[in-house]
Amino acid sequence: MKNNKLKLTLNIILFFAFVFGCSQTKPILSTETSNIINTFYGDALEYKESYGLLKDLTKNVGQRLSGSLGAENAVLWSKTIMENYGFDNVYLQEVMVPHWERGDLEECFFYSNSKRVDLKILGAGGTISTAKEGVTAEVVEVSSLEDVEKLGKKTISGKIVFYNKGFNPRYINQGASYGQTGFQRRLGAIKAAEYGAVASVFRSLSSIEDDVPHTGGMSYSNKFDSIPHGALGVLSSIKLSEELKKNPKTKITVKLSGKWFPDALSHNVIGEIIGSVNPKNIITVGGHLDSWDVGEGAHDDGAGCVHAIGALRLFQQQKIKPKNTLRAVMFMNEENGLRGGVEYAAVAKKLNEIHIAAIESDASAYVPRGFGFSGNEKQLNKIQGWLGYFNKNTISYFSKGGGGADIGPLHRSFGTPVFGLSVDGQKYFEMHHTQKDVFELINARELELGTASIASLIYLIDTYDL
Amino acid sequence: MKNNKLKLTLNIILFFAFVFGCSQTKPILSTETSNIINTFYGDALEYKESYGLLKDLTKNVGQRLSGSLGAENAVLWSKTIMENYGFDNVYLQEVMVPHWERGDLEECFFYSNSKRVDLKILGAGGTISTAKEGVTAEVVEVSSLEDVEKLGKKTISGKIVFYNKGFNPRYINQGASYGQTGFQRRLGAIKAAEYGAVASVFRSLSSIEDDVPHTGGMSYSNKFDSIPHGALGVLSSIKLSEELKKNPKTKITVKLSGKWFPDALSHNVIGEIIGSVNPKNIITVGGHLDSWDVGEGAHDDGAGCVHAIGALRLFQQQKIKPKNTLRAVMFMNEENGLRGGVEYAAVAKKLNEIHIAAIESDASAYVPRGFGFSGNEKQLNKIQGWLGYFNKNTISYFSKGGGGADIGPLHRSFGTPVFGLSVDGQKYFEMHHTQKDVFELINARELELGTASIASLIYLIDTYDL
Repeated sequence: MKNNKLKLTLNIILFFAFVFGCSQTKPILSTETSNIINTFYGDALEYKESYGLLKDLTKNVGQRLSGSLGAENAVLWSKTIMENYGFDNVYLQEVMVPHWERGDLEECFFYSNSKRVDLKILGAGGTISTAKEGVTAEVVEVSSLEDVEKLGKKTISGKIVFYNKGFNPRYINQGASYGQTGFQRRLGAIKAAEYGAVASVFRSLSSIEDDVPHTGGMSYSNKFDSIPHGALGVLSSIKLSEELKKNPKTKITVKLSGKWFPDALSHNVIGEIIGSVNPKNIITVGGHLDSWDVGEGAHDDGAGCVHAIGALRLFQQQKIKPKNTLRAVMFMNEENGLRGGVEYAAVAKKLNEIHIAAIESDASAYVPRGFGFSGNEKQLNKIQGWLGYFNKNTISYFSKGGGGADIGPLHRSFGTPVFGLSVDGQKYFEMHHTQKDVFELINARELELGTASIASLIYLIDTYDL
Repeated sequence: MKNNKLKLTLNIILFFAFVFGCSQTKPILSTETSNIINTFYGDALEYKESYGLLKDLTKNVGQRLSGSLGAENAVLWSKTIMENYGFDNVYLQEVMVPHWERGDLEECFFYSNSKRVDLKILGAGGTISTAKEGVTAEVVEVSSLEDVEKLGKKTISGKIVFYNKGFNPRYINQGASYGQTGFQRRLGAIKAAEYGAVASVFRSLSSIEDDVPHTGGMSYSNKFDSIPHGALGVLSSIKLSEELKKNPKTKITVKLSGKWFPDALSHNVIGEIIGSVNPKNIITVGGHLDSWDVGEGAHDDGAGCVHAIGALRLFQQQKIKPKNTLRAVMFMNEENGLRGGVEYAAVAKKLNEIHIAAIESDASAYVPRGFGFSGNEKQLNKIQGWLGYFNKNTISYFSKGGGGADIGPLHRSFGTPVFGLSVDGQKYFEMHHTQKDVFELINARELELGTASIASLIYLIDTYDL
């Protein structure tokens, strides 16, 4: 009796030790699920449909900044693609978006020993224009917003502030460098204007030393004047900094011609495969359809759009009827407003929709490495058990935190658990928001591994719940 | 007493459950080790010394097929580099290597409606030449060695065998596709000659549909004639196959001018940092110095060479004195003979050297994903506990199996545990053994992550043993 009791106790302990201590290391995998996931990968790599879609989007639609004709062409394009695939519902969701245009004139130069030296400049997305002849002033080089505050109005007033903080190459994750330098672009004009600057320029948020400037979102404040704000190429920034060391009184001329227009009507584009068991439960998978007005928005975020459409397409190709409703959403206006993501959550609230999970792909077409996840610990533990379904050279982790800008409002409104695709990002900030973000940079196999990884995650959520 | 006994038993059980069931998930990490490893990565990414070395090797030495002047220049180059770094010992190890030269004449064509159609051809590494006017014959298209056997001498004799088996795009691991199609290049000439063919050609071992042919090692057999053997571009293979469907009697002309010379004296190049505690214990880290005679051998395997030198350099930069002797070895002749790897193990045996571990980098400069390992289960379990030291976007696994061709003889002679760096291989077979394998394909950050990953692994082996 004593021995039996002991044995029983030991068995219970071993059971719990196994379940709680080790369930992450050796989960039991379903052969059927493994086969379906392997087929997702095989089909994606063989048929390369996402790659074909992305070629079409980048080469036949091209740039698609919110409010532009390109954006509206992209809306029609994605609606047509999903209709042609025979998704159950394809519809547009109206959203008013900001409308800004760059204009043609972008120049920056100074004179050194009477010789004109040109610098590569690209207006930040949303900058106002200078006068036609540009704005010319002495330059104050800084590396932080605090520098501007410390130098004060006496030094800054009437000058052009030059933010020159570079990426830290030592970080494995260059997103951290982006995070540390992003203030220059986002907040630089506000702080410079607060202290009386007549314009501001900043070193491009770039991981390499070339001279291709990077644009991106910026802000003005109602409290201060709006001043022209432009990105310099990294080599141009270095050149300017060197000149300032030699000749601190050097004046630069900046010409920009950005212009704001009234908000424009645009759309999120939604394609659905209706759930066979719980049609009211929605799993969203999305990318953003708008891009910057340089390059082709191939990585950012054409890739995310074709990941989303392509993932649903992979369900079709295997004739899998999901239990829950799957929604591919092309969000409008991630880059300079997030109006699409906000509207999507607002409509969901109004219609009392049930959102059981959302996945965003806005990290590019580079090879997938994992998923970030924002949800509770129990869910995180559960999904760790799904890792065994993935080839170790595709998805090797589910990490805590992450999701995406467009599905953020959904997460905050409903507590919807959200996933973000993580990819190998070593080259991302070489081309982010530049003319270099074109289709030719995309590797078909890497893109398709992203599509299959997302389809697999959707399948796991749909089959095993969170 | 009973309760105490039970408690003790439970504690023992829990302890074992923890140690054996879960030690892989939550190992205790050393802050000192973490700091050192983080500094390896930071230094590699900031100073980019491997990248600088690779630029020098590819641009100033260039191609370096065994027996060539380029190979001897590479030997001197790596000796000088390691001497300039001040490694404790730098020396050459003599090894006789095969010496084959491609020659200038490489052509393949057929006539279709009296119009000459050219096909892209590149001799397999080691092919004999054709007569100057080439060899012209009808073509038998096959997709396996068994096809040749089945068709028999009656069909094959006097013809040119055309092996046309393509990669399977559905595999995530394209190394598997390479494995399934490699027979065409390696054994195709032997089998074709056995059945009386006058020459053989084969579809390049490539993961993409372009027309750049891939060379690589091949064999002849003493039992049969040697016949000319060349790689066709993938598009050329498709073109030829289509022509044969229309006109099965189409004759192709193949011109190749490969030539064999007597074995040449060459060298492995070895650089050492002597161990401070156990100088006789050796940890080898190597790549192969020879390359094919097309492209610049940037990924294959200039990257492996600068990974090895760069890893030791990272120890120098942190002023870390390893306990055991670290050896960076540039192996000669991996591509068409493996004489360097064989000689290295033979010398080790002769000198009674103690080899505690060896690491090979011959998978390219693409971003690292893990290490393959060939050793015992206990060692494999132990190294799994080291995963926590690596950023999840660098080394995310230690997998069973793997090592490298050059350290294979060491493993087989001594049972030395061996590691092979695994990288993201999606693009590898687009450029492998082609004119496209040049420095411009190398991303500095990805290469440097490989260097730091290897330095980190060496440090862990050196500090914690296997």
